[in-house]
Amino acid sequence: MEIVSKAKSFGGTQGVYRHASQCCGCDMTFAVFIPPQAKKMPCPVLWYLSGLTCTHANVMEKGEYRRLAAELGLIIVCPDTSPRGDDVADVEDNWQIGKGAGFYVDATEAPWAKNYRMYSYVVEELPRIIADEFPADMGRQGVFGHSMGGHGALTMALKNPDRFKSCSAFAPIVHPATADWSMNAFRAYLGDDEAVWRQHDACFLIEDGASFPEFLVDQGGADGFLDSGLRPWLLEAACKDTGSKLTLRMQEGYDHSYYFISTFMDDHLRWHAERLSV
Amino acid sequence: MEIVSKAKSFGGTQGVYRHASQCCGCDMTFAVFIPPQAKKMPCPVLWYLSGLTCTHANVMEKGEYRRLAAELGLIIVCPDTSPRGDDVADVEDNWQIGKGAGFYVDATEAPWAKNYRMYSYVVEELPRIIADEFPADMGRQGVFGHSMGGHGALTMALKNPDRFKSCSAFAPIVHPATADWSMNAFRAYLGDDEAVWRQHDACFLIEDGASFPEFLVDQGGADGFLDSGLRPWLLEAACKDTGSKLTLRMQEGYDHSYYFISTFMDDHLRWHAERLSV
Repeated sequence: MEIVSKAKSFGGTQGVYRHASQCCGCDMTFAVFIPPQAKKMPCPVLWYLSGLTCTHANVMEKGEYRRLAAELGLIIVCPDTSPRGDDVADVEDNWQIGKGAGFYVDATEAPWAKNYRMYSYVVEELPRIIADEFPADMGRQGVFGHSMGGHGALTMALKNPDRFKSCSAFAPIVHPATADWSMNAFRAYLGDDEAVWRQHDACFLIEDGASFPEFLVDQGGADGFLDSGLRPWLLEAACKDTGSKLTLRMQEGYDHSYYFISTFMDDHLRWHAERLSV
Repeated sequence: MEIVSKAKSFGGTQGVYRHASQCCGCDMTFAVFIPPQAKKMPCPVLWYLSGLTCTHANVMEKGEYRRLAAELGLIIVCPDTSPRGDDVADVEDNWQIGKGAGFYVDATEAPWAKNYRMYSYVVEELPRIIADEFPADMGRQGVFGHSMGGHGALTMALKNPDRFKSCSAFAPIVHPATADWSMNAFRAYLGDDEAVWRQHDACFLIEDGASFPEFLVDQGGADGFLDSGLRPWLLEAACKDTGSKLTLRMQEGYDHSYYFISTFMDDHLRWHAERLSV
């Protein structure tokens, strides 16, 4: 693992690291914030999964998580959103498939299957690195994310309820198998069998019996993708009368940007800290 | 004035605006954060001046000022650091002169004099626009900045002690007339007469009798530019036994980046709010 950069911030350390990913078959870059408390004891790990077009850097620069993470003693891990490099398949001029659009699934179809294994990367390979290289208490993990990364957070929590103690999302894609901006990627990565898609769709997972104790979801009321791609009311309907409790907060006037994410970042960090401290 | 973008954030509005600057002879872009309190009454204005290579966007995205500015009721104005456009003089491959390196002076020498008038732009033209277009209480203004923008903040406060009620800086260039990374720009913009340079150098201004009640300066101890370009001890020496009081805080382990700035942003906002609220 190579250190790309390290800087002191809010008494902790914001680092960027690069490693040869066996899972993705390419070099992968990720960001880790280590709070000051980690000098004395292992700290809980909160995974932040980013949205379409993003790398590890967007939330690291614009998410405003360090002040409170340093106060609460949370390690924040920010993976990339897809495999990278000249040899990695891509679709030019389409930001909804290929690089920056891994959708946190393991592709089964050519040419994507070779590198696009973001589910296994985030759930298996990267956690091993975090456990080995950082003062992390892997018994206390939470996950959150934005948009495509909100989809990633919800599905990973639903598929791994024993791993994650907390889950939240900003403007998540709650039902990617039926949303315009995700169906093409699902078809390309997973093939035509929609039964496979169901395994990576929060609404379908819940319908098929998966559950997670409670989700916090914030959604901007002025988000341009609200009706076409996000549709949090579908998650609300899916959770109704199930073991998965949803706290959905519509935030009037907020859009899909980091100006929205950063506004509610503190609330989400406190939500996770409460559930990771026990 | 054209609205480039507007987004709700922390209950207020982060906007980006563009206008034809008479002063600079080109279109100029700037950012303004309006706190929620401005719906009810005009709010004090805090000017943030950015460092070399930056535009209005760097601190807007990475400075983490909105949460507390929204709480304290401060308008934050972030100008660009130089004139812009294809017709504006520049030096290729030199980030210390030309675009992104206006140094908050009015150039007198060709070819710079035509557009590089950042002192008048920030002190005269842009304040008129802010007063006209935003719910600003122009009787309560403060100024702060980073690096080259720290130089800008210190010199503007010293030259306009009646205008500004508060001044602070992150890692400011306190003595640009004798620092490697600023002398070339001073010579290009202002000519060879070092008596003119003195009028845009915080240490020389104080030596020549200017004063400002009190400065807050934070400086990272691991800042790679500390000894070569920043040298806050020269400001400390200049302020000694004068009417200008300096609170200089060396922050161990911090570098020159926004990871440093954002860490101490809250302290600076509170410093200004205390002095702008009276």
